[in-house]
Amino acid sequence: MSSDFTIAIWGVGLIGGSLGQAWRRAGIGEVIGVDQPSVLEQALAMGAIDRAVTESEALAQADLLLLATPVRTIIALAERLGPQVRPGTIVTDVGSTKMAIVTAWEQHLAEGATFVGAHPIFGLEVSGIQHANADLPAGCRYAITPGARATAKSLGTVTRLAQAAGAIPKLIGAFEHDEAVAVISHLPQVVATALAATAGQTTALDLAGSGFADTTRLASSPAGIWLDIFMTNRASIKQAISAFQATLAQLESAIDGDDRDGIYDLFDQAHAARKRIAKGI
Amino acid sequence: MSSDFTIAIWGVGLIGGSLGQAWRRAGIGEVIGVDQPSVLEQALAMGAIDRAVTESEALAQADLLLLATPVRTIIALAERLGPQVRPGTIVTDVGSTKMAIVTAWEQHLAEGATFVGAHPIFGLEVSGIQHANADLPAGCRYAITPGARATAKSLGTVTRLAQAAGAIPKLIGAFEHDEAVAVISHLPQVVATALAATAGQTTALDLAGSGFADTTRLASSPAGIWLDIFMTNRASIKQAISAFQATLAQLESAIDGDDRDGIYDLFDQAHAARKRIAKGI
Repeated sequence: MSSDFTIAIWGVGLIGGSLGQAWRRAGIGEVIGVDQPSVLEQALAMGAIDRAVTESEALAQADLLLLATPVRTIIALAERLGPQVRPGTIVTDVGSTKMAIVTAWEQHLAEGATFVGAHPIFGLEVSGIQHANADLPAGCRYAITPGARATAKSLGTVTRLAQAAGAIPKLIGAFEHDEAVAVISHLPQVVATALAATAGQTTALDLAGSGFADTTRLASSPAGIWLDIFMTNRASIKQAISAFQATLAQLESAIDGDDRDGIYDLFDQAHAARKRIAKGI
Repeated sequence: MSSDFTIAIWGVGLIGGSLGQAWRRAGIGEVIGVDQPSVLEQALAMGAIDRAVTESEALAQADLLLLATPVRTIIALAERLGPQVRPGTIVTDVGSTKMAIVTAWEQHLAEGATFVGAHPIFGLEVSGIQHANADLPAGCRYAITPGARATAKSLGTVTRLAQAAGAIPKLIGAFEHDEAVAVISHLPQVVATALAATAGQTTALDLAGSGFADTTRLASSPAGIWLDIFMTNRASIKQAISAFQATLAQLESAIDGDDRDGIYDLFDQAHAARKRIAKGI
């Protein structure tokens, strides 16, 4: 990327803002942002963008367009923005589900532009530019799901941007991605929400310790973002919940029957899984 | 408590060691410890105890005996140690379940000694004196479940010790305690273990982010400690799992049926529960 490479971040919230900060710190071209005026003002103050621009300025100036809105908006933008994208522009995104997004953008994107689906896997249980932090992407996986409208060059650019933000690019098919995140991201959200809601129905909250707090941290996530994810990955999430319910029933039965081997076996499986996840997360 | 008040910690692991460090820092009398020689050596080096003693020395010298072993050992100790406790000695414990412990100790404790069941609600997903930390009890709840063998004086002493460690004493019945921790502590453990084991059966672990890591942090806990807890609180845990399964089924059905109101309602309940737990945990 040359120093006059322009990245337009469409939606400067927690994810877009953190990537903007990280890219500006890495000195990767110029970062411009599109959002509501109050958000752009804060994004400027927090060093997430170099300039605030209008939608048409972003379309005219961007070498790369990063769609960083909730999933449903990314999909809705395909029909409205897709045909207006300049030839040569690389479009990428940060959506947590990929099949629906890649399908919509490949359908509507203007000739000569390329689309590289992506999902930087970082976040917090809160959202908004006020929580953006250049260090959030560091060491995290950055899933890249190129489809038929990706080129080797555009794939290379998105890969380098992921690395410039300190993240670890991981090439994966869009469907395979959606199945994996159903288990590793969407299922934990569902479980944390159900757990916190269950505890809320009792008088036990007064005795909550750090274990309960950790296990339910995701339960503070805003529902709106998750509605989009649930809607665009329903089948895989259903499958993940079923697998979890089966494991839970197995553990419940082992506890109920004082089956020590059964309990140890499930704890061993859980320990092994924990050891395989990346350090420091 | 006078400055020559002697606290004997029976089992100087993560919990006993952290309390020993906190009490020594607070200048509450003398802290002596009973455990294996290698553990006592490390406990001395880490400032968790003033002196290492034998079992009979601990029984002879203790004004207060803190049982800080796994739950099953606390119960087994009742029959062996209970009759040997000197009159005037206060016996308390740190067990995560209370009914079985209070029942066993009230049955076997020598005349003239008092028993005050307790459960300091702090911990980590690791165990052992090497992880002890005087700051762990700070701000945590310290459940105190006095039974028929407690006196106002012994209850007052245990309450002051909880406060001296920086914790917040909470008086509660043993049965009520066990029902509450089934929901707030044992259920999260079961759910975290089942979640990590489920993810371990897939190829999704490579995409794990901080959300998965937080939600499954408890899944690294050692199985041995939990076997004891499951065995001594089976009915309440079964009830808590059932309540969770019902909430999970409700959320699954809302996701499956694209029932936005249903999804929002459960997220709202979860948000409310999260807001009610103590800050900073």
